[in-house]
Amino acid sequence: MIGITLGDACGVGPEILLEAFRDGELPRDFVAYGDLSALAFYNEKLAYGVPLRAIANAKQFQPGPLNVVDQGILQASDITPGRVSAKAGAAARESVVAATRAALNQEIGAIVTLPMNKEATQLTDPAFTGHTELIGALCGAADVTIMLASEHLMVTHVSTHCSLRQAIERVTPERVKTILRMTAEAMSRIKPGSRIAVAGLNPHAGEGGAFGDEEIRVIRPAVEWAQAQGWQVEGPLPPDTVFFLAVRKRRYDAVVCMYHDQGHIPLKLLDFEAGVNVTLGLPIIRTSVDHGTAFDIAGHGVASTSSLLAAVHFALRLMRR
Amino acid sequence: MIGITLGDACGVGPEILLEAFRDGELPRDFVAYGDLSALAFYNEKLAYGVPLRAIANAKQFQPGPLNVVDQGILQASDITPGRVSAKAGAAARESVVAATRAALNQEIGAIVTLPMNKEATQLTDPAFTGHTELIGALCGAADVTIMLASEHLMVTHVSTHCSLRQAIERVTPERVKTILRMTAEAMSRIKPGSRIAVAGLNPHAGEGGAFGDEEIRVIRPAVEWAQAQGWQVEGPLPPDTVFFLAVRKRRYDAVVCMYHDQGHIPLKLLDFEAGVNVTLGLPIIRTSVDHGTAFDIAGHGVASTSSLLAAVHFALRLMRR
Repeated sequence: MIGITLGDACGVGPEILLEAFRDGELPRDFVAYGDLSALAFYNEKLAYGVPLRAIANAKQFQPGPLNVVDQGILQASDITPGRVSAKAGAAARESVVAATRAALNQEIGAIVTLPMNKEATQLTDPAFTGHTELIGALCGAADVTIMLASEHLMVTHVSTHCSLRQAIERVTPERVKTILRMTAEAMSRIKPGSRIAVAGLNPHAGEGGAFGDEEIRVIRPAVEWAQAQGWQVEGPLPPDTVFFLAVRKRRYDAVVCMYHDQGHIPLKLLDFEAGVNVTLGLPIIRTSVDHGTAFDIAGHGVASTSSLLAAVHFALRLMRR
Repeated sequence: MIGITLGDACGVGPEILLEAFRDGELPRDFVAYGDLSALAFYNEKLAYGVPLRAIANAKQFQPGPLNVVDQGILQASDITPGRVSAKAGAAARESVVAATRAALNQEIGAIVTLPMNKEATQLTDPAFTGHTELIGALCGAADVTIMLASEHLMVTHVSTHCSLRQAIERVTPERVKTILRMTAEAMSRIKPGSRIAVAGLNPHAGEGGAFGDEEIRVIRPAVEWAQAQGWQVEGPLPPDTVFFLAVRKRRYDAVVCMYHDQGHIPLKLLDFEAGVNVTLGLPIIRTSVDHGTAFDIAGHGVASTSSLLAAVHFALRLMRR
């Protein structure tokens, strides 16, 4: 069974789940984690007519209605679509904690998360740095990272949410090796026999040192280390060629990227709405939609369900292995 | 009339020109600039059977054979496909000088350049930094930059061939404004009424300063300056969204990029072989193939003519305006 967290109740999470449920696009066996009141609010506002059922834990699941492990934190009056709300931020956090504990206790086989709002959650938890970091901490995981996956491409990143200047500093031997290891281990589960490409940091992968030496100092030695572990890893390859080789020539199954946009630019150009985030390094399976709370359109029933459906299907695929 | 320079005689330039000519894919009125001996060498080696005719200048053009403004520098014995050769490097440089002068004298209406080999040319001209810089200097142009164009996308870059670390340093108010101005001026000729997007440097275009401040300090003020000039320019936009908006949503005609791979990754993913380089900031029209000398395959008759044909057609399009 999959557990889907609703995310921030003032964002697009609840309505996306309702719409996908109403349209029969979700697997039969799943439970939601969040506030029943949030689902009821959007169910009424958007006239979805989805039958809802509050349960105390996943074991109480019954087929038919949308089963919610109700956190009971929010009331309808707490919910204003598109608003940064301390209470909604705190409630979203609690539902993630509940779902993660349920996964660790094997009550559910995977979690799929709808978007939280960092600003809202930080109003009651100033130390909150991100959804993934929270789940990693709850699992006691030392290293976690996100794999961004779509139909065409899978990418991991040596760094993500930091300035480009900081991203360069994070291209260290330890970090590159960690991401190579996590990518290789994940791909061996997702698609045994996968071939992994490693992008360079600089144009033309440094052109032999003329355009930067990180390829020579850091990336190439890390690739050689990974090859010595028996993983099918190649690189560093020129960043403007590696995605062409992976996507058009099908020469690689995944690309290890040195910074956020190196992987996000090609992936979002190819599959803007159907990307999935897969968290690597956890003892549990967790996938996530590849979009935010979209406060600008929340409550209008226009947000796309594509990424949720892709995230659910990817979680099912990982559960089957 | 267009002038096409052969590029390095040990690279794929001459054979690409011969193949395109043999296949009837080039316009009737063009002249080549280079060594007749180089064309003769590949013509024989690859049995293309293209009729060649040496001329002293473009005015002597006659339809029928492939007309070459023969530089008379190389002999067949100087040419070894795939070899870095000082003599071939110097000869390639001379043919570019000749074609540029012919364009400045209005003997030809545009130049299209096949690839030089930087290493080979530096053996006799250690100060040589690049094909584009050479042409810029011959034209007395203060600022030159390359626009990379394909069927799907046109991109310019604040910097190109330097390390990513240096690329960040080059995001200065003066440089960003210069590239915005050159892009807007070029687009007004290429496609009047164009909309130009400006990418941020950092993930999420800095997310309000959380992931770097170049957007706030440098890029946004430059965009506002450009808007005040009356140009249709928007940004800075998140780098992982702007190409989706330009290509899939057709919201922008060109994207100003902050570094080499930001523009090269999406463009080469979409149009690997049919990209064209257009030099902006020159008093003459110059386009170039978007590939190098490809020494690894030179002399085998397998190099693609796509980029040459795209470069010729783009030059014709610019000449018509």
